[in-house]
This record gives sequence, C-alpha cells and structure tokens, in this order.
Amino acid sequence: MPRSAPCVLLTGFEPFGGDSINPAMDVVRELAGERIAGHRIEPATLPVTFDGAHAALVAAIERVSPALVVCVGQAGGRARISLERVALNLVDARIADNAGAQPIDVPVITGAPDAYFTTLPVKAMLQAMTAAGVPAELSLTAGTYVCNAAFFALRHTLQTRWPSVRGGFIHIPWLPEQAARVPDAPCLALETMSKGIGIGIEAALQHREDISAVGGTVC
Amino acid sequence: MPRSAPCVLLTGFEPFGGDSINPAMDVVRELAGERIAGHRIEPATLPVTFDGAHAALVAAIERVSPALVVCVGQAGGRARISLERVALNLVDARIADNAGAQPIDVPVITGAPDAYFTTLPVKAMLQAMTAAGVPAELSLTAGTYVCNAAFFALRHTLQTRWPSVRGGFIHIPWLPEQAARVPDAPCLALETMSKGIGIGIEAALQHREDISAVGGTVC
Amino acid sequence: MPRSAPCVLLTGFEPFGGDSINPAMDVVRELAGERIAGHRIEPATLPVTFDGAHAALVAAIERVSPALVVCVGQAGGRARISLERVALNLVDARIADNAGAQPIDVPVITGAPDAYFTTLPVKAMLQAMTAAGVPAELSLTAGTYVCNAAFFALRHTLQTRWPSVRGGFIHIPWLPEQAARVPDAPCLALETMSKGIGIGIEAALQHREDISAVGGTVC
Amino acid sequence: MPRSAPCVLLTGFEPFGGDSINPAMDVVRELAGERIAGHRIEPATLPVTFDGAHAALVAAIERVSPALVVCVGQAGGRARISLERVALNLVDARIADNAGAQPIDVPVITGAPDAYFTTLPVKAMLQAMTAAGVPAELSLTAGTYVCNAAFFALRHTLQTRWPSVRGGFIHIPWLPEQAARVPDAPCLALETMSKGIGIGIEAALQHREDISAVGGTVC
Repeated sequence: MPRSAPCVLLTGFEPFGGDSINPAMDVVRELAGERIAGHRIEPATLPVTFDGAHAALVAAIERVSPALVVCVGQAGGRARISLERVALNLVDARIADNAGAQPIDVPVITGAPDAYFTTLPVKAMLQAMTAAGVPAELSLTAGTYVCNAAFFALRHTLQTRWPSVRGGFIHIPWLPEQAARVPDAPCLALETMSKGIGIGIEAALQHREDISAVGGTVC
Repeated sequence: MPRSAPCVLLTGFEPFGGDSINPAMDVVRELAGERIAGHRIEPATLPVTFDGAHAALVAAIERVSPALVVCVGQAGGRARISLERVALNLVDARIADNAGAQPIDVPVITGAPDAYFTTLPVKAMLQAMTAAGVPAELSLTAGTYVCNAAFFALRHTLQTRWPSVRGGFIHIPWLPEQAARVPDAPCLALETMSKGIGIGIEAALQHREDISAVGGTVC
Repeated sequence: MPRSAPCVLLTGFEPFGGDSINPAMDVVRELAGERIAGHRIEPATLPVTFDGAHAALVAAIERVSPALVVCVGQAGGRARISLERVALNLVDARIADNAGAQPIDVPVITGAPDAYFTTLPVKAMLQAMTAAGVPAELSLTAGTYVCNAAFFALRHTLQTRWPSVRGGFIHIPWLPEQAARVPDAPCLALETMSKGIGIGIEAALQHREDISAVGGTVC
Repeated sequence: MPRSAPCVLLTGFEPFGGDSINPAMDVVRELAGERIAGHRIEPATLPVTFDGAHAALVAAIERVSPALVVCVGQAGGRARISLERVALNLVDARIADNAGAQPIDVPVITGAPDAYFTTLPVKAMLQAMTAAGVPAELSLTAGTYVCNAAFFALRHTLQTRWPSVRGGFIHIPWLPEQAARVPDAPCLALETMSKGIGIGIEAALQHREDISAVGGTVC
C-alpha cells in the first residue's frame, strides 16, 4: 500500500561521551509524526559510532524514501541552533565513539570528495528561525567527530544514489539540565529547539533555492 | 486586617535600551502570588532610571514588609542566571537611562560605604539551582548601571532601616526572542528562569546561613 | 644563472576593511630573505580582492618555483596562530573587498571541487609551535572572504599544475596596536607571530608526512 | 642620607598554581630602577599566600615611602591589561595558595569595610595605554584570590596609615609561553605588558584626578 504523503527524514543521535541524554533525540521525538508543509516527519535514531551511523542513515532513507533529510546532533558549548554549511571527508576523533573507536585523520569515505556543501537552503532557514525568535546561526564547521561523519555520509549517499533529494545537518546546544553542570556553558530549552527545527524544516520545504543574503565571515 | 503570611518582595524592571520587553518583568509576573516555603511572592516593577529605582524600591518595601527581597534584572549577553555577590557605590552609565540621564563616576548614594555584600545565601541558591538543572553562576560584578544602583540602594536601605531583612540581586540572560536578533548571543527560556528564581528563593528561605563551598575565582 | 637553493613562497595581504596595517604583511617582511632548513623565504604581497589575489598568487609561484607555499592572512578577533585545515570553494563576503566587490554565495572557482584540504603537516607544525611557546591552534574554517578564496585558489592551482608542491594557509591575530582599539579583542606581538610562522615553516619542511596526534573536535 | 627622588612602589608576585613563571614578576623586573615622570620605580615581590602578601606589601611601603603604589598580578585567561576598579573584603579561594591554605568566604581583614575603590586614575591610564597601542580594559572584579586580597590590604593600609598615597592593582594576561599550553587561551608579550604598565604609571603620576569618560557596563 502506497504512502499517501511525502515525508521528511529527521534523525537524532544516541547519548555519547558519558551523557545519559542527547537533545537531538529529544527534538526528533517531539517532532516525530508531525506534518509540516504537507510532509510527515519520519524519525530515526543514529548510533554514535563511526561504523554504524552511516549504515543506519542509509537504512532509514531506504525505508521512508524522504523528500528531504535533516540530521540533528548535539554541539555542547554552542549557544544557538547551528545550520551547518559543509561536511568534510575527515575523521579526527577527540574522544572515542560509543563503540570505543577513536580514528585519527582518516577519511569518512575513502575515495569520496574532500567535502560536500549542504543542499538545505540555510539562509532561508536562518531568516525564518530569526523572524520567529529562535536564536540560530550559520556554521562553517560541523567538527570532525561522528556528527560530521554522518553529515558527510548523508551528502555522499544522496549525491551518488538520490541526487534529487536535499539534505543537511543542524547542530543544537545542550539542554539546560546538561549545561547546569558545566561552568559558563550556554543552552537552549527543548521547546525552543523543537520550534526552531520545525520552522527550519518548513522553510526548507518552501525554498527550493536558497535566498541571497549576507551571511559570511571575514576570516 | 493583618496579612496572615510573611512575604518575599520580588522586583523586576521596565524594558530599557530601546527594547520592548524585559525578562525580569516576565519572571516577576510568572511568580507573583505564588507561595514558596510559606511565603507569598509580592511583585513590584522598578523604573530603569537612576533617580526613580531607589524610591520605588523603598516604597515597595514599606508597602509589603517583606521577610526577604530579591531584585531581578536583565544582563544581555550572559548565558546563565547570575547570583550577584556585591553591590558597588558607583554609577558609570554606558548608555542613558529611561529618563535620559547618563551619570559618570558618581556614587549611588553619597556618603554611603563603597560596597555591600549580598545577604542572600548565594552558594546554597546556586547549589539548589544546579541540582534542579538550571544553569546558574556566582557573579562578582553587577555592573555600574541601574541594576547595580538598585542593588546598592536595596542593601543600603535594608542595612540602615531594616537590618534583619535579607536581600540581594539576580541577573538573568536575554529571552530567546531577544537573543535571536544579536549575533552569537546566548539566552535562557522564561520557564527555565522562572523555575530557577523560584528555586533560588526557596533555598534562600531555607538557609538562614549560607553553605560553605568553593565558589571563588583565581583572578 | 640558476637559483642555488630551493625556496618557500611566503605571502601576506595588503591592509583591508579600512585598516592601515596588516600583520600578515609585517610577518612576511620580517621573514623575507631568511633561510629556514636550507630554503630561502621568498616574499609576496597579495591584493585583498577576489579578482586579484588568485592571479598574484599564481604569478608569484611561477616566478619563484617554490618547494612549499605558505599564505598568511589576518583573522581579527582570534587569539592564536590558526593553522587552517580546509579551503572551501565558497565566497560569501560580509564586507566589500578592496575593489568594492562583495560576492555572495558564489564559488571561488567554478567547476572546481567543493573543498581542498591543506597539504601542510599542520599537526607537526602545531606541535613545534607549542613546544617553542607560541600559542597556536588548528582551525577547520578559513572563513568565506578573500583569505579563504586565496587558500582555495592556491590549493586548486597546486593540485592541477604543481601537484608535488605542498601549500596551505595560516591565519594570525591582530597586532596589539590594532586590538587596543577594539573592546575585548585579543592579539599577538609581531615577534611572537614571526617566530611562530618561522617555526611552522621549519616543521613543514622537516615533515614530509604529518604526525598522528589527537587534534579534532567533537562538534 | 635622604633619597633624592620620589618613587613608585611596583610589586609583582611569585609563581603559583604549579607554574614556574609569573609575568607580573617579569614586568616588575623590566621596569625596576627606571625613572618615570621623575619617579624611580622600586620593585618588590610578594608571596602568593593569604598570610604573607599583606605583610610583605606593608614592609615594602615602609621601606621605600612611595608616592604611588601599583601592584601587578597574573590573570590567566584574560586577553588585555586589566585596570582594577575595586578591591573586595572577601577571600574565596578556588585553589590553595603557595602555603597550602584555601580559605572560603572569610574577610581579607576582619572589621574592615566591604570594599575599597582604587585611587589610581584608571580611565586616564586606560586612555594613555590605548593611545599607545596597548590593549587594556577596566575591570570591576579582581577576583577573590591572593591578588584581590593584596589589593584590598593595600587600599586598607594606605587609607588607614598613609591616606595621601594613591594605589591600585593591575591584572595582566599570561605570557605566550604560558598560553601556548592552554587551548584557546589569549596572551600578551612581555614587552607589550611592560610598555603598558610603564605608560599607566606615567598617566597616574600626571593625573592627580581621573578624567571623565564613559567606561561603565550595563550589567
């Protein structure tokens, strides 16, 4: 029986680094099943392992045939929702992943290009989040850990197997209860993050092409 | 007819600096009328003027005869609830107040001491907020604007007229909708701030003496 | 008459953004003509224009036939010498360049890959600078302005025309006299930066392959 | 035999916290014996102990009968020369001092006031440093460790025994070789700090009264 409506695949991650929660998983749970701009939100949770994240992501894409893929990951220490612009073909793990692996300076996918840009309209998404009062920003680095690796695997997979499907990555800050234990750390409330991600998805669905707006950095 | 229960005076401020909202006012509104550890929360709003804040604060104290006074003010750019440890007898206004006054390097109250320490048990309050998952911190400076001036006036007034009444000042970050417009700025949700201030008041009422815990800075 | 020794091409930039100095130019001037690990330092100054930087860089490479190319640029607001790991094929100018151009979201070189990694052994360079007491760091973004554009043009040019020549980009902070005028801004002294760049070049010449060391970020 | 010229007492501190150097000691050594605005610079080194710093400071004042006292201390993590505005009568040690003592929430001097303002013309000093290209800033907190304790003891001693002698405290950043080992840390070169402190002393000697300039903070 055919699925009647198109969908958005929204992925989070399991907790990692000794933490028992991961706000990315909470945001995905909040939005799962919602309908945004005529698209149903299909959730998936990725393992925080260099070996497993890629396969889980591909399996989820094959399962739901999404029109759009948005992966969400935790960026402890950041203060705002970060719309990532570029995925690097580089793994350089500062801590071990959940399987105990800590690869240093190896490619995410051997033989793949050095990087892929997001195909999400991040400036339109930033504009929509800002207009709705959600603190957000563009980011030029998703790091070199499992988040970036999943982002790179996503873009490589879409580019090579489903080139018409757009996809990208959004980093989110710690929740208040995580930041409370870390001196000086900022955070966002779950409600603010879920609202922001929802608005971002809506803007992505509404803008096939990104808007033109100043968003760069001098250095 | 006598007031049956003791109360806590909780003050906020009007918006200032061109803004149309002030999270301190919102937090006070949220907690107004609540009962915390047997004390009723009595709200008051102070003007953001060097001339008017002091008088409005004294009038509110005279009106409600509080057992405890907690003044709350906005500290745009900070990431956590800041429990202020010291009020300075110094005004050095970087921007004009809501009456257009911008005094530079004058005392808050001529002839008063150079500073007063808070009489709130700020380490017990920090511990309680942290345990409840609310990001908070101790602060050694409340600045040199109207917030610090109100804090100093509060402590001087209590010290000289009601020495048994404890009181202090708490700075809070911007709300998400304020931070959304300022690059890189952190924020806290209103719910997180109201919860934190409520927990702080409860801890203050429960601890006549502060706890002993490391909380200082090296420089 | 043949040049007897191999050389390193070391480039800086003209002042930009209304400033009258550029520390990158000063560092290049300090090191010009020096001999490091048997290589002579050949200086060049690049214009801060999207149109001109690429051509000036290629002309300098053709002129001196370097064994190694190190481009240096100013990153006002950073606190340490930043060894850039990746050049993006993206221009998104927050301010106009010295020719008045402000391109938004266009490639540096149409048809070129999305990114190139540095071919400098940045972890060996970081280790050498740190051991010598020079504050340095790895960086995953060179921004989206002329610095990144020159870095990308360098890597694309080397990759396609001189694939055996290694090259990369180093960002440096403001000088003290620049930072003095900007609230909160950090800086490094010219002597510290020149020493650091010299040590970095020496390490690059001594390490044909980079060392393996943890240097990544979690997000 | 009488000392022919008036002098400035300039104090530094021994290394602490496991470090083998302290830039404050280096700056004092650099300026020792110099003549600034007709005043000879008399150096002294204070121990980093809550018990010993006060006595060593008083002994130095008695020994050299200064016209002005400037105490310098290290503030690792700060990026600029910090002109401290206020000394608190509070010790709250985050780490043990060099004698192993770690007092928490006790006064520096029992029975003394809660705070003293600096009697250095810090805005004139800031203006002079900035004009000379030295990154500096005003600071409203000298912390709660030995630096603040020495600053408070200085001001209390001058106020009660030599009220016509002005004195204050200046915090300085790490040296490059210290910052090199700490991720993200800023620093200043010894030359920049010595130059800045010299210029600050000169401005202090030239301005009996401070200038009026905006220098405050909103919160």
